[in-house]
Amino acid sequence: MTMEIDVTIKLKQGVTDPEGENTKKALNLLGFRTVHGVKTMKTFRIEVESVDEEQTKIEVAEMCRKLLANPVIHDYELSVVKREG
Amino acid sequence: MTMEIDVTIKLKQGVTDPEGENTKKALNLLGFRTVHGVKTMKTFRIEVESVDEEQTKIEVAEMCRKLLANPVIHDYELSVVKREG
Repeated sequence: MTMEIDVTIKLKQGVTDPEGENTKKALNLLGFRTVHGVKTMKTFRIEVESVDEEQTKIEVAEMCRKLLANPVIHDYELSVVKREG
Repeated sequence: MTMEIDVTIKLKQGVTDPEGENTKKALNLLGFRTVHGVKTMKTFRIEVESVDEEQTKIEVAEMCRKLLANPVIHDYELSVVKREG
């Protein structure tokens, strides 16, 4: 079957997020004064051919460790968004 | 009350996603041959002071149009992740 898995890469607690901070400032300057904070995250939606769902999740976690996330600064989360076939 | 709203910015259907394509290639080269496609998305988690939830959603949609998304190439989605106070 074909699966779609969302891998969300976010900064670990305590790591500064300059993009988020600058987005907050820009929003405040544009007049959105109720915005108190902005955090940024990145999502990879991975379409993968799967025989066994658990095995596929283990593989996708390995993709995170090998390529998608930097373990020094990032946490990652997986969520299955589609199963087909 | 304080609300946290996730704004997900994704490329419109038909717009090429070079980052996603290159990520797919890299994963294949690393031995993950079951990966058929990768799409990238960006999420801004916005912490905002809210009096009226519907009004706040309208404001956040305006933030997307004014700053966060490029209407030529992006679609955006809002989802409330937290309400507090």
